[in-house]
Amino acid sequence: MKYSSALLSSVVDHLSRLPGIGRKTALRLALHLIQKDPQLARTLSASMTDAIAGVQECRQCHNLADGPECQICADTRRDGSVLCLVESVRDVMAVEETGQYHGKYHVLGGVISPIDGVGPDKLNIASLVSRIAEEQVREVIMAISPTIEGETTMYFISRQLAPFGVQMTLIARGVSFGGELEYADELTLAKSIASRRPYHLDGHLVHPD
Amino acid sequence: MKYSSALLSSVVDHLSRLPGIGRKTALRLALHLIQKDPQLARTLSASMTDAIAGVQECRQCHNLADGPECQICADTRRDGSVLCLVESVRDVMAVEETGQYHGKYHVLGGVISPIDGVGPDKLNIASLVSRIAEEQVREVIMAISPTIEGETTMYFISRQLAPFGVQMTLIARGVSFGGELEYADELTLAKSIASRRPYHLDGHLVHPD
Repeated sequence: MKYSSALLSSVVDHLSRLPGIGRKTALRLALHLIQKDPQLARTLSASMTDAIAGVQECRQCHNLADGPECQICADTRRDGSVLCLVESVRDVMAVEETGQYHGKYHVLGGVISPIDGVGPDKLNIASLVSRIAEEQVREVIMAISPTIEGETTMYFISRQLAPFGVQMTLIARGVSFGGELEYADELTLAKSIASRRPYHLDGHLVHPD
Repeated sequence: MKYSSALLSSVVDHLSRLPGIGRKTALRLALHLIQKDPQLARTLSASMTDAIAGVQECRQCHNLADGPECQICADTRRDGSVLCLVESVRDVMAVEETGQYHGKYHVLGGVISPIDGVGPDKLNIASLVSRIAEEQVREVIMAISPTIEGETTMYFISRQLAPFGVQMTLIARGVSFGGELEYADELTLAKSIASRRPYHLDGHLVHPD
């Protein structure tokens, strides 16, 4: 697309380098930031500068933090005896969004993937082992993607943690709530049937504990 | 969504104020800008600052420009005897994208809409009349949205330009190329049939000139 302004064109070029942002969306955003709301452009720039300078990795769980320790690790009301093991910072946020989890986290930073050159040493596994050895952790909930790489990672980690006798659990997989059965993929549906649970007359699902 | 970092949260808040960007997309973009590509965040900020300071409205066509005159108005190879009348800067870019138009433009800045408090005086109509009076314009192509407001605007402008004897044309409306007939709306299909043209044996559409 040809632009009448080289300055506008430069903003569009930068915005279209963002993931999932095409040229048309980039143009719409650029016109909004330059014409409609330049104040937003200024405050956005300032907040990005502050974040790049200030955001660091939590020394305990590797989540994003404003200081050496993240807000979740620093929260004494949260249950430190349960760790939720996730791949990324976004997964922490997805679990937090549920509002149902009150334990702490450990961010792996990915999954083991030899094809992509990601071995166990590139992930935050050593620091997980240290935490299990030093902290009073009762249970590690593995909230890892059910892919080949995810399964490999979980197997590797469960082997590493076996000597400590910590309980390892896996988040449930099955048909989505509100999802129609016919649209569930075969593997999920098969696992869902295999993992069936007794149904009680009051209509509620029976939870294990 | 709760974030472990207030600095990250601030970037997400700003990004989610952009049109069409929800919280989840804003988070994805913020993590990319802060973690993966801070250099992009820096150059994006710089390009926005430059554009806000430097981009102005072309004094002739009201398109965006890096100086008092836009690149299209300044291009002497373009045919100044034809003006394409559009609502917005984005419409100029859409027409430019076709690569088929070699005349110049006039950006109205919107359409007449009494409900939204937009009268003819809020649009770049007076400057259009001046251009028609002063420049050697042979034809004005109205590339305006076929809405009630668009039709009103075109009627108003054609009345204003009538004394100058300039030719007013309207871009063709009809079924999209590659579009399936059954998905075209009834009004478009009806207008499309009413505006039918002779079909030549060589299979090409017959153009008016």
